[in-house]
Amino acid sequence: MSKLFMFEKPIGMKDTLPELYQIKKQVKDSISKEMAQWGYAPIETPTLEYHETVGSVSAIMDQQLFKLLDQEGNTLVLRPDMTAPIARIAASTLNTAERPLRLTYDAPVFRAQQREGGSPAEFEQIGVELIGDHSNSADGEVIALMMSSIEKAGLSNYQIAIGHIGFVNAFLFEVLGNEQRVEAFKRYLFEKNYVGFRKEVDQLPLSSIDQKRLKDLLTLKGGPEIIDKAQTIIESNEAKKALSQLEQLINVLEAYNLKDNVLIDLNLVMHMSYYTGAVFEAYSEGLGYPIGSGGRYDGLLEQFHRPEPATGFCLRVDRLTEALGKTKESITNDVCIIFSNERRKEAMNRAIDLRQENRTVVMQDLTGISNVDAYSAQFKEVIYFVGSNGNGGSFS
Amino acid sequence: MSKLFMFEKPIGMKDTLPELYQIKKQVKDSISKEMAQWGYAPIETPTLEYHETVGSVSAIMDQQLFKLLDQEGNTLVLRPDMTAPIARIAASTLNTAERPLRLTYDAPVFRAQQREGGSPAEFEQIGVELIGDHSNSADGEVIALMMSSIEKAGLSNYQIAIGHIGFVNAFLFEVLGNEQRVEAFKRYLFEKNYVGFRKEVDQLPLSSIDQKRLKDLLTLKGGPEIIDKAQTIIESNEAKKALSQLEQLINVLEAYNLKDNVLIDLNLVMHMSYYTGAVFEAYSEGLGYPIGSGGRYDGLLEQFHRPEPATGFCLRVDRLTEALGKTKESITNDVCIIFSNERRKEAMNRAIDLRQENRTVVMQDLTGISNVDAYSAQFKEVIYFVGSNGNGGSFS
Repeated sequence: MSKLFMFEKPIGMKDTLPELYQIKKQVKDSISKEMAQWGYAPIETPTLEYHETVGSVSAIMDQQLFKLLDQEGNTLVLRPDMTAPIARIAASTLNTAERPLRLTYDAPVFRAQQREGGSPAEFEQIGVELIGDHSNSADGEVIALMMSSIEKAGLSNYQIAIGHIGFVNAFLFEVLGNEQRVEAFKRYLFEKNYVGFRKEVDQLPLSSIDQKRLKDLLTLKGGPEIIDKAQTIIESNEAKKALSQLEQLINVLEAYNLKDNVLIDLNLVMHMSYYTGAVFEAYSEGLGYPIGSGGRYDGLLEQFHRPEPATGFCLRVDRLTEALGKTKESITNDVCIIFSNERRKEAMNRAIDLRQENRTVVMQDLTGISNVDAYSAQFKEVIYFVGSNGNGGSFS
Repeated sequence: MSKLFMFEKPIGMKDTLPELYQIKKQVKDSISKEMAQWGYAPIETPTLEYHETVGSVSAIMDQQLFKLLDQEGNTLVLRPDMTAPIARIAASTLNTAERPLRLTYDAPVFRAQQREGGSPAEFEQIGVELIGDHSNSADGEVIALMMSSIEKAGLSNYQIAIGHIGFVNAFLFEVLGNEQRVEAFKRYLFEKNYVGFRKEVDQLPLSSIDQKRLKDLLTLKGGPEIIDKAQTIIESNEAKKALSQLEQLINVLEAYNLKDNVLIDLNLVMHMSYYTGAVFEAYSEGLGYPIGSGGRYDGLLEQFHRPEPATGFCLRVDRLTEALGKTKESITNDVCIIFSNERRKEAMNRAIDLRQENRTVVMQDLTGISNVDAYSAQFKEVIYFVGSNGNGGSFS
């Protein structure tokens, strides 16, 4: 612990200045409008939740949680995601609401960072949860809505990778035979450490056929033909069932005319441990990390004593904004009316008129400015009501 | 510490369901639009700040702060207000920006509560800061903007109490002679404990004239004539200067035609210790607590090594919404298209058409609903694309 500079912010924390704020707002407004038009209703949840309930369900690693104690000795967490809090609401306040439930949110989430990491410790997620619908149509809808949201935000250069965690689990288990090994291989996939994966395959006492099957898994990325290819390396019914679900999901997306930006990736493993079925990530060209992700989580609601299927996605507002690559233009303000005390009333009346015409008008007392030229330079138009008579002088 | 129910939320924490969310959104959008039209630029600051910097400046009592430790052993706080973080930005990132600065925010702030208190521990503030302008016009502008914001939100039945903390400080000091007594009397005023105030007056070894002067302070609430009345009980130059500022501020508000909803209250003492000049609170009839407050804080920026005058206000979105008293109508959804797999494509095309007409359309796979009648009852119109042929059946 060292003496802090007065202006320092905690690790991973950022301010958002007006230029970036406006870009982010445009992005969020376009997306919110699209989600609303698809029938998703907006909700908010508290920033703090109990660690024992929502915190433990949220599947973010413990060391990434911001924790604190309340006055009664309970551990609180700053919410690390929105899916677990919304599951809490779906299973309690909205317990008797008709299913499927379509809910949307736009909120910051929190993950503690190391100083050297440079990742944000607070970032905004905008997303949806579709709760109570087991059908492939539900998976297809959330993927289609994610793609439509990205496009409404203004990004056309993106790709969606779709996988199935149920397939990965079933396939790895039928080859490896125990959960511990399955988890080890899933970690390689999550970290996209394919060198480590292959090395581990070579070191295991497996038949050459099984070694080949495992290595073949790494090739399962591409178009719809990948599903046929995957059929050749699996045996178990669970793996077959997962592939059949994925096939139907791809059919749904074809009906949406969404083939072009879609890639099947049967190596896709997400960091959220609660996913059970189809999972997906969105990438933008030139950005090294996903701008959004989602998937089916049919086991999560059970933890809140209301077992039911669910799927959803979230977009990261910061990364999506970065992907759009809009340059932060310095904002040129509209009108400034500079006035002196004796002509205040005239100045006010002009401001009222201009604001009614939807102009943005700063009213500024002359005595409150130290450098009139520098101050005025920020505006497209400056109107003066200064001195004891005459009309307002206008300089633009 | 006891075992928690799975659905419990931390003390003072709330969910916002769609019905209330929509009302709050309308309120916030109207206010944001007004603030933007007056030339205030929106910014965001992090939820967490260092306790040593912003936390210690924010003037919220320590026991009300949510505190936690970061990995380096520094104490963090969940921001208890927005004025201190914005002062931090004004004095650092925006250090060289032209003055006056006009900034606006809309963000949750955090104050730890006791279980029995029932007050929210997280609530949303929407407000402005006008930094670098010492003039009465600046005070008048923020009060006028607060009133205009309240009206744009839809509330007409409200009142603004305006006081001057510089007057209270100077007057109490000239009568009481030491800071400790001044603080004791200010606490009575802050708590609006006038019985306690009078009792304390009677117990102090003061001249009967000074006792009367103190009790007369409690009568200084009313119209502009209050300022003349106040002149009769004061002697010090500071108190006179404060009254003169208040008089000029009232003149500014008269130019805005804002006399009707304004009350002068020379007893007004705010909980924020950083205020130095004119202070004000907004009340709505029938609500026992202010819906908004603000004031001049000419000393705060100095704590960030950039001494400059400033004023601002914030509105509490929760209380303003409550004051509006809008009943939460259950939302009737627009259109639902219920489809079966074989007619998915037709259903999608209809959804696309209707959304282009700005309708809200839920697309729902028939196999994802358990009770079609109950589900359909939520919508104004339900269109079916079910079965192998025929046109979409519509029921509204």
